[in-house]
Amino acid sequence: MLERRKPIPVGDAVKKIMENQLTGVTEYVPIEVSYGRILAENIIATNDVPHFDRSPYDGFAVRSIDTKNASLDHSVEFEVIDHIGAGHVSDQTVNEFQAVRIMTGAMMPNGADTVVMLELTNSFEKNGKRFMSIKRKLNKGDNVSFRGEDTKAGETLVKKGTYINPGVQAILATFGYSEVPVAKKPVIGLFATGTELLEVNEPLEPGKIRNSNSHMIVAQIERAGGMAHYYGRLPDDFDTCFNAVKNALEKVDLLITTGGVSVGDFDYLPEIYQKLGAEVLFNKVAMRPGSVTTVAKFQGKILFGLSGNPSACYVGFELFTRPIIRRMLFSTQPHLRKEKAELLANFPKPNPFTRFVRSIVQINEGKLTVSPSGTDKSNIVTSLAGANSLMVLPGGTRGFEAGNVVDILLLEDQTGSEWPW
Amino acid sequence: MLERRKPIPVGDAVKKIMENQLTGVTEYVPIEVSYGRILAENIIATNDVPHFDRSPYDGFAVRSIDTKNASLDHSVEFEVIDHIGAGHVSDQTVNEFQAVRIMTGAMMPNGADTVVMLELTNSFEKNGKRFMSIKRKLNKGDNVSFRGEDTKAGETLVKKGTYINPGVQAILATFGYSEVPVAKKPVIGLFATGTELLEVNEPLEPGKIRNSNSHMIVAQIERAGGMAHYYGRLPDDFDTCFNAVKNALEKVDLLITTGGVSVGDFDYLPEIYQKLGAEVLFNKVAMRPGSVTTVAKFQGKILFGLSGNPSACYVGFELFTRPIIRRMLFSTQPHLRKEKAELLANFPKPNPFTRFVRSIVQINEGKLTVSPSGTDKSNIVTSLAGANSLMVLPGGTRGFEAGNVVDILLLEDQTGSEWPW
Repeated sequence: MLERRKPIPVGDAVKKIMENQLTGVTEYVPIEVSYGRILAENIIATNDVPHFDRSPYDGFAVRSIDTKNASLDHSVEFEVIDHIGAGHVSDQTVNEFQAVRIMTGAMMPNGADTVVMLELTNSFEKNGKRFMSIKRKLNKGDNVSFRGEDTKAGETLVKKGTYINPGVQAILATFGYSEVPVAKKPVIGLFATGTELLEVNEPLEPGKIRNSNSHMIVAQIERAGGMAHYYGRLPDDFDTCFNAVKNALEKVDLLITTGGVSVGDFDYLPEIYQKLGAEVLFNKVAMRPGSVTTVAKFQGKILFGLSGNPSACYVGFELFTRPIIRRMLFSTQPHLRKEKAELLANFPKPNPFTRFVRSIVQINEGKLTVSPSGTDKSNIVTSLAGANSLMVLPGGTRGFEAGNVVDILLLEDQTGSEWPW
Repeated sequence: MLERRKPIPVGDAVKKIMENQLTGVTEYVPIEVSYGRILAENIIATNDVPHFDRSPYDGFAVRSIDTKNASLDHSVEFEVIDHIGAGHVSDQTVNEFQAVRIMTGAMMPNGADTVVMLELTNSFEKNGKRFMSIKRKLNKGDNVSFRGEDTKAGETLVKKGTYINPGVQAILATFGYSEVPVAKKPVIGLFATGTELLEVNEPLEPGKIRNSNSHMIVAQIERAGGMAHYYGRLPDDFDTCFNAVKNALEKVDLLITTGGVSVGDFDYLPEIYQKLGAEVLFNKVAMRPGSVTTVAKFQGKILFGLSGNPSACYVGFELFTRPIIRRMLFSTQPHLRKEKAELLANFPKPNPFTRFVRSIVQINEGKLTVSPSGTDKSNIVTSLAGANSLMVLPGGTRGFEAGNVVDILLLEDQTGSEWPW
């Protein structure tokens, strides 16, 4: 049967998905495995940094007042009464014309209020005692890193929803976060549909192609920060198929199917949604590729019926599924990052609907440029591999020329956009 | 003892490391776990795509010659002799005024040379037989995706050294790479030195700080594509320490130590290198932070003595260790990606040595801008967390002003530079 579907604008479609208040869940993981995860709470400084006055240099801790007569013509001598490395604390108090040899990072000894750098001193022995002399005056506090100078206890250092990079790892370690609050990865179930699909290790047959979408989407799910559960190919039989979808829905946060959403005779996803009692949010979007993308909701979970066409499938995931995954990772910028770039090639095709072109963004003398990553036949997987962005050519435009500035959505990026539409 | 060290330019230091011909090793992993790895071989198309002539639409396969009289005023009727879905192959041959109902992606039946889209047809029954009619002429080849049209067998699709993104996963699946040749992750051993170091789960004590460098570097190693083996803190005793380094060297490709490379009395890494018989490539670099970075080679392995200062440690890893890891991952652009950006803030400090400033690069109307991510005190870990780049301020410059264009090195990037110095 031929069904008439009413296409809605991309932004409206995304909005209908994001209106579902799916929220994130916090879990604690050891710091050793927290790199690459997303913070589920703000990270607070649990202590001052430094948490004691310390020496930023190798040298001698002295009283500044004792240096006041030191000059190029007049060296002042200090008796070296102790020698402390980083991590050690002197039990001596520095008195008049006394010095403590101190290493980078070590705690200032009592009495001392400045550090003279090793290379500005002259060491010697006298009567079996160690001495050093200097020819320069120092002020109180010179060459001392004071407690709390870098960070005060209680400060918010990294915000909830932030990707944990190596620098964040350093902060977590510094402040004793041996267990890190991270967003639990949403579990995304995945079914492929299509009797034409062979598994990757199967030899080709006439009329059949290997299932590339599932491997692609699993990687897209991981890139977005989710955890993929691939359930294999849906069977041809409607009842078996219906039960497979229903059972999977109990184990996942979101469910993706690829294929089976066109108006072809063998496309039975819409029937499954109906029998489930799922509410179809939309089943046609004014975009190319991916116009047949269908999204439904059922008992607080979202079902994504992505096109079986590789490019449409790819784009559909990034526009519609990724942001809800990122939302569940506490992101306040869950959408693909939108920027502007100068088009390097002519793109003469008119765009009755908003077109997403697989593209390569490059940087040229500090300016973003963009060109399509392959031909625009939407069944070409090869151009997906080289793409680092999607060029957005709005519906109702006539074509674009080299030099035009266009919107782009960046694919390999942890920053995101609050709302790009 | 005070030792005089001669600083060498950053580029010379990196060159001395890269002259070591460390090469990559190929291993095969299942496609299910290949996302995020690096290809160790070129990926070749193992078949044409499509590998049979196929229909890009839902519709009817017919002989174009039979449509030549079809027009808005004159509809032409066809008997529908078969009905094939994707993955199925018709055993019928299309003869005069016959049609086969065909789904998107299905193989063209014998005899047919064009496809008429479903929405341009009118279906009906006559004498118990199925018919359809059209009012438009088609040419031979219209709406047919021909064998090899997208890709010819034998074409190189993705180059060795490429990061496997979701699009590359799709290609691997399409061409039957169920086992994927990837670069074996180089194993990088890591020791921390410093009696002042506490573990992350230990409470603070006067004079001591938690070991943040190790957690940071492990994440940096993973980001670069290596596998980290953290061996803990080196003991204070020289012999135990020497044996620990010597034993670790047998199990790793590269060995990193943090701390213990200054000229302070308790810094014994140089002695370890000497006793090992390792050749010191350099022990001072004309840069800030990280001037005391020391790199040595021993039996085809490289020892990186990074500074114990967090920023110096971070920068030292990215400039010196990362590129050799990437080389072992078959990258032809192993260095941090260098670009240009407009400085947003004044940076009045003179730069006697090349300075690497932890920075935030943003994109503003398609142009890169950069500003420091924190104050430039090199012991501040908090500014590392927000940094996505290092600003490079060359030695011998007097300071920079907002609006100046400066070089930047991008930290979260898989593209890299061939040679940024």
